[in-house]
Amino acid sequence: MNIWGNKIKLSIFGESHGFGLGIVIDGFPAGKKIDYEYIDKFIERRKAAKTKFTSSRKERDKYEILSGLKDDITTGAPICVIFRNENVKSKDYSNLQNILRPSHADYPAKIKFSSFNDIRGGGHFSGRITLALTFAGALAKKYLEKKKIFIFSHIKKILDIVDDSFLEKKYEENIEKFKELEKKDLPFLKKDLEIEVKKLIEKIAQQGNSVGGEIECVAYNVPVGLGNPFFDSLESKISHLGFSVPSVKGISFGAGFDIVDKLGLDANDSYYIENDEIKTKTNNNGGILGGLSNGMPIVFKVAIKPTPSISLEQESVNIKTRKNEKLKISGRHDACIVPRVLPAIESVMALALLDEIL
Amino acid sequence: MNIWGNKIKLSIFGESHGFGLGIVIDGFPAGKKIDYEYIDKFIERRKAAKTKFTSSRKERDKYEILSGLKDDITTGAPICVIFRNENVKSKDYSNLQNILRPSHADYPAKIKFSSFNDIRGGGHFSGRITLALTFAGALAKKYLEKKKIFIFSHIKKILDIVDDSFLEKKYEENIEKFKELEKKDLPFLKKDLEIEVKKLIEKIAQQGNSVGGEIECVAYNVPVGLGNPFFDSLESKISHLGFSVPSVKGISFGAGFDIVDKLGLDANDSYYIENDEIKTKTNNNGGILGGLSNGMPIVFKVAIKPTPSISLEQESVNIKTRKNEKLKISGRHDACIVPRVLPAIESVMALALLDEIL
Amino acid sequence: MNIWGNKIKLSIFGESHGFGLGIVIDGFPAGKKIDYEYIDKFIERRKAAKTKFTSSRKERDKYEILSGLKDDITTGAPICVIFRNENVKSKDYSNLQNILRPSHADYPAKIKFSSFNDIRGGGHFSGRITLALTFAGALAKKYLEKKKIFIFSHIKKILDIVDDSFLEKKYEENIEKFKELEKKDLPFLKKDLEIEVKKLIEKIAQQGNSVGGEIECVAYNVPVGLGNPFFDSLESKISHLGFSVPSVKGISFGAGFDIVDKLGLDANDSYYIENDEIKTKTNNNGGILGGLSNGMPIVFKVAIKPTPSISLEQESVNIKTRKNEKLKISGRHDACIVPRVLPAIESVMALALLDEIL
Amino acid sequence: MNIWGNKIKLSIFGESHGFGLGIVIDGFPAGKKIDYEYIDKFIERRKAAKTKFTSSRKERDKYEILSGLKDDITTGAPICVIFRNENVKSKDYSNLQNILRPSHADYPAKIKFSSFNDIRGGGHFSGRITLALTFAGALAKKYLEKKKIFIFSHIKKILDIVDDSFLEKKYEENIEKFKELEKKDLPFLKKDLEIEVKKLIEKIAQQGNSVGGEIECVAYNVPVGLGNPFFDSLESKISHLGFSVPSVKGISFGAGFDIVDKLGLDANDSYYIENDEIKTKTNNNGGILGGLSNGMPIVFKVAIKPTPSISLEQESVNIKTRKNEKLKISGRHDACIVPRVLPAIESVMALALLDEIL
Repeated sequence: MNIWGNKIKLSIFGESHGFGLGIVIDGFPAGKKIDYEYIDKFIERRKAAKTKFTSSRKERDKYEILSGLKDDITTGAPICVIFRNENVKSKDYSNLQNILRPSHADYPAKIKFSSFNDIRGGGHFSGRITLALTFAGALAKKYLEKKKIFIFSHIKKILDIVDDSFLEKKYEENIEKFKELEKKDLPFLKKDLEIEVKKLIEKIAQQGNSVGGEIECVAYNVPVGLGNPFFDSLESKISHLGFSVPSVKGISFGAGFDIVDKLGLDANDSYYIENDEIKTKTNNNGGILGGLSNGMPIVFKVAIKPTPSISLEQESVNIKTRKNEKLKISGRHDACIVPRVLPAIESVMALALLDEIL
Repeated sequence: MNIWGNKIKLSIFGESHGFGLGIVIDGFPAGKKIDYEYIDKFIERRKAAKTKFTSSRKERDKYEILSGLKDDITTGAPICVIFRNENVKSKDYSNLQNILRPSHADYPAKIKFSSFNDIRGGGHFSGRITLALTFAGALAKKYLEKKKIFIFSHIKKILDIVDDSFLEKKYEENIEKFKELEKKDLPFLKKDLEIEVKKLIEKIAQQGNSVGGEIECVAYNVPVGLGNPFFDSLESKISHLGFSVPSVKGISFGAGFDIVDKLGLDANDSYYIENDEIKTKTNNNGGILGGLSNGMPIVFKVAIKPTPSISLEQESVNIKTRKNEKLKISGRHDACIVPRVLPAIESVMALALLDEIL
Repeated sequence: MNIWGNKIKLSIFGESHGFGLGIVIDGFPAGKKIDYEYIDKFIERRKAAKTKFTSSRKERDKYEILSGLKDDITTGAPICVIFRNENVKSKDYSNLQNILRPSHADYPAKIKFSSFNDIRGGGHFSGRITLALTFAGALAKKYLEKKKIFIFSHIKKILDIVDDSFLEKKYEENIEKFKELEKKDLPFLKKDLEIEVKKLIEKIAQQGNSVGGEIECVAYNVPVGLGNPFFDSLESKISHLGFSVPSVKGISFGAGFDIVDKLGLDANDSYYIENDEIKTKTNNNGGILGGLSNGMPIVFKVAIKPTPSISLEQESVNIKTRKNEKLKISGRHDACIVPRVLPAIESVMALALLDEIL
Repeated sequence: MNIWGNKIKLSIFGESHGFGLGIVIDGFPAGKKIDYEYIDKFIERRKAAKTKFTSSRKERDKYEILSGLKDDITTGAPICVIFRNENVKSKDYSNLQNILRPSHADYPAKIKFSSFNDIRGGGHFSGRITLALTFAGALAKKYLEKKKIFIFSHIKKILDIVDDSFLEKKYEENIEKFKELEKKDLPFLKKDLEIEVKKLIEKIAQQGNSVGGEIECVAYNVPVGLGNPFFDSLESKISHLGFSVPSVKGISFGAGFDIVDKLGLDANDSYYIENDEIKTKTNNNGGILGGLSNGMPIVFKVAIKPTPSISLEQESVNIKTRKNEKLKISGRHDACIVPRVLPAIESVMALALLDEIL
């Protein structure tokens, strides 16, 4: 169901090409001033068309908060926000009605919803739905910042171009660098990657192809003991929300899949004491042990698949004639959605932590 | 909370060194005959002591089904099963009371539960809790098999020894090979890996060290349309349950993190028609699109970290004196728990699918 | 939390005097045509100002369905509907800011939400929120009607004026009479009560006082076996939703509190067979046994308290000065909200049954 | 599903005549010493055979706490407790297999669970299941008492014998009387009712008939603001749990159904200030406004139907032959279960409040 959370409950709705989309956030504390500038800046980061290789739809992303506020302060009642779709080209989806787009949700959605599914622009399966998640994420992130918990993300990998990791970066020494990340079109920790990757993606865009990538996300200053032992381990909660973001195909914590290349002695995060604080020398567990936060930075990575909508001709099937058929998806597409997914991933971290910290 | 599921609800309880552990399974259909032999064989696969490199505790794993049955047939009422701990050495945990075991749950659990946490044998955080999950998994797996849905798993990787993938194996052509997997101590798809890996792990065991690995799990014949678009995507449900299994640090679907190395045209799973069935040529999406099953095999991988309990001396902290202190964990340990985790991972797949198929 | 349901999930939001209110309905089946006329007629029944003794606010109750439809047919995605508040007098609530209105939510809401609560018109506690519930109820009721399940309600009691009960009415013999109920301002089963009660309420209205009443609701043709044995008994589900409707102070099934006046032999509903159908002679259990529907009409009653907003002077407390203070609530008020609550109560029945029948 | 709660989660299981029954309590705070004497005394109150008119089965009600404790102190892990059935006569249920017991769950359970339901002693539908609820209730009640919240209950009404109400009793002035209630077989507030009612029930028992009654339950010193505005109103939570108790057919708060006999001015609970505390003169709302506790005593009543198992001959239907057939249920039965239900109702109050207060 489209409901997530324990102490906060998120209920998401909407479509890419209908009226719009929105979210109900229930359980958010009363008495919090809405920081519109903060929200706008955060949401802006997932906007299309900010670089050449993302799709041309100029979404205005204006939202309307329908409930839960009085004088811009939360009342404790559920907050509902809606984003109206504007600038929606009434594109001709008639040929897509029957030819299945590879790696899109079309086919299973048609079967599940007996063809009543709205496929225009991905419908309820559109990545655009993350706009609503990002709004909720902005509220959560701001709330956590007041508690000195800071969340950052960057692109960890595009094809064979690999960035540094938060795992090796101390917060205190990198504050300024981290703050720069959210201002960049293509945020990397290493200095020179941005231009290189921009060129790479533009080349792929020109070919009518697409590319995915890895995102790494971190939360600093998380208190010890958030999460639960078994079914609602902190990893379970983060991954549940994380895999709801379209195009995410993998999630890993700390060293992630690389932990299998280490032996126990190296994989184990040894404790030491520093200024009476208990810390670990390494953070292969990504700040989570036994499903609980251990006070070290929470670090996770997600794998984003290449945008399935490409201009290149693809092989497919016409579900009506039940014959093989070639498919060319017209229009402009995102050659790489990775930079647009960053705020959604930060929202995943923020909302999972908020749900535990309340 | 220790509750999982929508149509079935699992409620897990217990400790490694107390009375025992168990699970309540609510919502399981009425009229199903309990196949004790099937359950026993399935549970047996997670037993310790079957090879030299796993720990010596000879758990009998006898269980008692307390409710939900009449004449060995499910009544539709909640099923509660308990496993009593036997052969629990009253080991001396007094030195562990204060020195934190690296990569164990000790430290955050102490903080979360104000030191009332039971650390003996890992307590409620013990991997032994998966015994209860595996019982539920056996019921679910058997139920799915009646519907012709078959689940298998194998070790995909131990250090640099890499096995084949289910992604390249057609079910019909490999039935016999797949059936052999569950009979092996170290199940691989490739013929010769078992001996090689056994030697490797024994060597690591002798060093007092440990090693993790990757597990791959598949479900064949899953109907199209299971799952949900956003928060309860099939990936979300599987990963939520998967990350509740202790030692899992990463979960990925289909090509997983390798999908970022492909461009869109190659990453997209092209459709074709065969005997009027719609299939995809590749399965980079692991049988899930838009959070819904697409009829292709559901394939996911998990990364298992090396067992944190090792004999080698480690650096740590005494939480009472708040000083650095060396730690040696006595007793015999699993040098590699990966083979023991396989049935838990199959249970994750089975239970997630059952919850959607009911 | 403002979420209800298992197979459908309702998420309600909004305020009486803010932008408006709405609901997200998740899990409603795909492929259902929206019957606007049906919805409008159903919602119309809770409108104010249709008789002299209800408050004068002329709500237009225009709604906008934001999601989950394509060409007026449900897609299976979550349905969000919003009702904008119109004609909201910017009444002066400043004196109410500090003087607590007796039997209103003001006082506990102020404490719970640290005074950030929006008290205008009752805010999120307003009975107006049931408008959203009623929309969802209309969808559910229509869905059930297609399955030949019919829901009716009437006023059972106003002060000492008592109507007949559905418990003594066979569906087949009363279809026409039942259909008339929803057309009436004050629906009773007995012929002559409407005028009598209208006069009574008008008299009370003139005095600046108010009155409550009992509502009885029935569902005919409910299949046997809906519900669950313990925590989610059908009574539990109906009452959970029923007590969320503001002003409801009691809910009872079948003979309700009168069942304590009978001995077992009379209270027990004897079975008999009629045209190979199993029926009971009486229906003291209101169609529910052991938490499950038994095929007899589901019948429940609710007690609605008198509207707390009255014109008469009341004794109260100024929360700021912490002194006793008299209070007069200006403006026009509903002298009796019972007729307006009827569709909300039918919605409770419809939604509880829908959640079990899906 | 057999799961209830938000912050605590209860998962109940078991049957009357199988192995036994139990409950998993998840989310109970760590560090609480188990008070066995307190639990035993509380559970003892629901025992049969303590008076002549209750059934003769001498249940020992010995329980085993399987998890969640170390040295009799809660660890924060889920608590599972089981009660084994002892002294279960292997009564002949073969004639009941086909003849439906009026007002029992037999018939709908047979349909819902396709006849796999265990009918012996009521199976999972047995009132005996409340034993597990009562254990959880004892933990909750004790927890609340440490926070100075005190819960009491009494029999409000048996046929036409009516007791006083908590609504008119101040806690401070009645402490001693209230404490006596839980020591009595038939607890009343009025002095002389016990003997009168005992005689009445014994007479009914001799006739082979049965009788129900009303229970009233109160919680004193509940803090202001517990509960939620709409779907999870405090009334919704209490009633959801309350209607899961077998035989409950009605629940009302404060003045309950009698509130419809009052006009607004009298029904409204006027505020006044006393020693700087805000109180209401009357408590017609039973301590709950807008779904939130308002600081006044929480008071609710439940209607308990007469025990459906009676010795007198009843009319029924043979579900196999599908013919009308007379039924005589042999064995001894409870002529009045009302006194045995009291601790279950107190548990409902305690658990609902605990879930909100944590």
